Amino acid sequence: MRREEAQPAGYRPLDVETVKAYVAGLSQLSGRLGGGEGQLTAREVGDGNLNLVFIVEGPTGSVVVKQALPYVRLVGDSWPLPLSRAFFEWNALTRQAAIMPQRLPQIFHFDETNALVVMEYLTPHVILRKELIAGKRFPHLAEHIGVFLAETLFRTSDFHMETAKKKSDVALFSDNVALCAITENLVFTDPYFDAPLNRWTKPGLDRAALALRSDRAVKIAAQEMLHAFTAKSEALVHGDLHTGSIMVTQEDSRVIDPEFAFYGPMGFDIGALIANLLLAYFSQEGHEAEAGGRDDYGEWLLRTTESVWRIFEARFRDLWRSERTGILYARSLFEDQGDLSGAEIALSRFLCGLFADTTGFAGAKMIRRLVGLAHVEDMEAIAEETRRAACEAKALAMGRELLVNRGRLSDICAVTSLARSIRREKGLS
Amino acid sequence: MRREEAQPAGYRPLDVETVKAYVAGLSQLSGRLGGGEGQLTAREVGDGNLNLVFIVEGPTGSVVVKQALPYVRLVGDSWPLPLSRAFFEWNALTRQAAIMPQRLPQIFHFDETNALVVMEYLTPHVILRKELIAGKRFPHLAEHIGVFLAETLFRTSDFHMETAKKKSDVALFSDNVALCAITENLVFTDPYFDAPLNRWTKPGLDRAALALRSDRAVKIAAQEMLHAFTAKSEALVHGDLHTGSIMVTQEDSRVIDPEFAFYGPMGFDIGALIANLLLAYFSQEGHEAEAGGRDDYGEWLLRTTESVWRIFEARFRDLWRSERTGILYARSLFEDQGDLSGAEIALSRFLCGLFADTTGFAGAKMIRRLVGLAHVEDMEAIAEETRRAACEAKALAMGRELLVNRGRLSDICAVTSLARSIRREKGLS
Repeated sequence: MRREEAQPAGYRPLDVETVKAYVAGLSQLSGRLGGGEGQLTAREVGDGNLNLVFIVEGPTGSVVVKQALPYVRLVGDSWPLPLSRAFFEWNALTRQAAIMPQRLPQIFHFDETNALVVMEYLTPHVILRKELIAGKRFPHLAEHIGVFLAETLFRTSDFHMETAKKKSDVALFSDNVALCAITENLVFTDPYFDAPLNRWTKPGLDRAALALRSDRAVKIAAQEMLHAFTAKSEALVHGDLHTGSIMVTQEDSRVIDPEFAFYGPMGFDIGALIANLLLAYFSQEGHEAEAGGRDDYGEWLLRTTESVWRIFEARFRDLWRSERTGILYARSLFEDQGDLSGAEIALSRFLCGLFADTTGFAGAKMIRRLVGLAHVEDMEAIAEETRRAACEAKALAMGRELLVNRGRLSDICAVTSLARSIRREKGLS
Repeated sequence: MRREEAQPAGYRPLDVETVKAYVAGLSQLSGRLGGGEGQLTAREVGDGNLNLVFIVEGPTGSVVVKQALPYVRLVGDSWPLPLSRAFFEWNALTRQAAIMPQRLPQIFHFDETNALVVMEYLTPHVILRKELIAGKRFPHLAEHIGVFLAETLFRTSDFHMETAKKKSDVALFSDNVALCAITENLVFTDPYFDAPLNRWTKPGLDRAALALRSDRAVKIAAQEMLHAFTAKSEALVHGDLHTGSIMVTQEDSRVIDPEFAFYGPMGFDIGALIANLLLAYFSQEGHEAEAGGRDDYGEWLLRTTESVWRIFEARFRDLWRSERTGILYARSLFEDQGDLSGAEIALSRFLCGLFADTTGFAGAKMIRRLVGLAHVEDMEAIAEETRRAACEAKALAMGRELLVNRGRLSDICAVTSLARSIRREKGLS
């Protein structure tokens, strides 16, 4: 039986009362919380689409309890979703923590039966997406996440990882079928036909949304990216690395919620982040109090987009040179024969392909947030529908270009230049 | 514990005596063999690199018993190799048999503990490679194998297979680490540095063999194909589809020995077969009794190479149109919207990439048979070393071009034209 078909017999969803008893029963937390069940307070704060999230506080400290529900919270129990996603999240967290613990919440406890993870309560951290809507800047964000991407993707790939371990991990995460299926359907397929759960700002986005269905180039491109998603097992990807999966302060950034993790294409994670930064960029005119009032902030978003890729690439190049211990591009073929430039050329060729994947995935991720089931608060928060549709139409045009012209955009500056150009266009909505 | 780390406690290698008792004990075979242990005869005929192979004959019929040894037979017990390869072979055989039983030996029994499979004794079938060396023609070969490739690759891919089943199979075959490692090392890496097991015809091939190590383009190309091998899980591939893995008569063709099976790139199987047909082609001058005596046969080999691809492609196109039930390129995006041409364009784009992979893998497979550990009888049977080296040098040049220029060869005729051209070149050795 596949793991995700099994719903453990002892599973019991917690509530704000039972979660206190549960946490009080974990002896490893008593020092942190500083009190027994009677001294704990709990609240449920889950605002995502899938899970219960509790904050449990004691006299001296606090923890988060994240518990999977057997269905999609956003939709209800008509859409069942296996509890095993907590197992995959925990497995992803432990692997990421072995590489970059400083970019994650600390993990205290995993309970497979109850499909829950107990972890550090990040405070005063706030979800990045909310801060971007508020127009706040984070000077270390691109550095933190660019390095995190390079480290986690490189070190779980055949560039670095021992091949038997990587194949064993590919097998383990292959079982994360249901969460991959969400992406396979909602990101790559549903936006391009009359899927029941699609929605968009009406009537402003009608024309652009419906045009996707007869846009052969974009449909084929989306399916080519889907094929890469299903059959390019390059590295352990987070699988849902949007700006709602990053918590920030001015000094710190942490990546949360890797329940969609599996061995997939590296560009999927980088593309997801870039897509969400660009969605934030195209939402700016919806948030400004006076015309042009958020132009500077838009430029900061584009600079951050550029920096994410550049910092990713720089760290990836360092890792390629110093930590390339896997079976790919063995040093015996290059450096050990004095052929340093051969290894550099091979690296540049790889990065060229990765950048094409990254832009393709970024395009697909933008489009699905505009005409598919799950939208982003950056746009949803724009109350006036005409204004929102105008922002969304430009973002949709950008997504299409990234998807169709992946592999033809010379570098990350070509992407940000294109974003500026599309934002200046008139009559797109 | 991974399956392949486990050597079952009860494992016992058979010999020509014990194999009779073993087979006599399988009640499902008594009707076929027509007699008990005392009426059976057995002989060991394994001529491959890895396993024991017995033919057991009774009064009315016969079977083959193929048993894995815990080491590489070609090298000896200094190179251990897990018995689990029989498990993967049996799993591949059952999956292929569900698709095209007429192209396989019938399977009677699998014994995981003893790492053996009992199957149909194919008679009067002969190993294709031996027949090609003898200059024999097989009018149905390309049709049989082209269709087999299309059917097995399409139906185990995300084009057709239910996604949960495919991911579960990816996981199962991910455990076939040791056999994948043989390919990863011997095919893609060892030929390009001073690996201890490399060998080639000396001194005739010295210059060409050593030149590979400073040939940056070929080294990078080989590693790019290795990356596709390790991280492109398109379909269940046979994994070792050379002309020694096909048994033929004038009317029939059967594919045997899929112990290297795993979810990998489709082009690996097609490329392996094309590589071995081209190796046969370049060996012709070594087998001719008088100058030009095998020229016609060489042309038959090239026509067969063309037909393999063309028949593969034609059947693949049919399957794409009629059996595309997987999650890729959903009909809801194309045919169901009246966009038949969109689906056709997507298909052609996919086949274009697959052809590039096919030629790249074909090139890598040719090279490794000339300067790596395992050579082919087509060349080895050429006794005179100067003559052999001349054939091998041309084959090596062909392999290099296929590898480096994959994606730039317009179609299969460009490949066969190139082969003719290289064969006519002087001074390549």
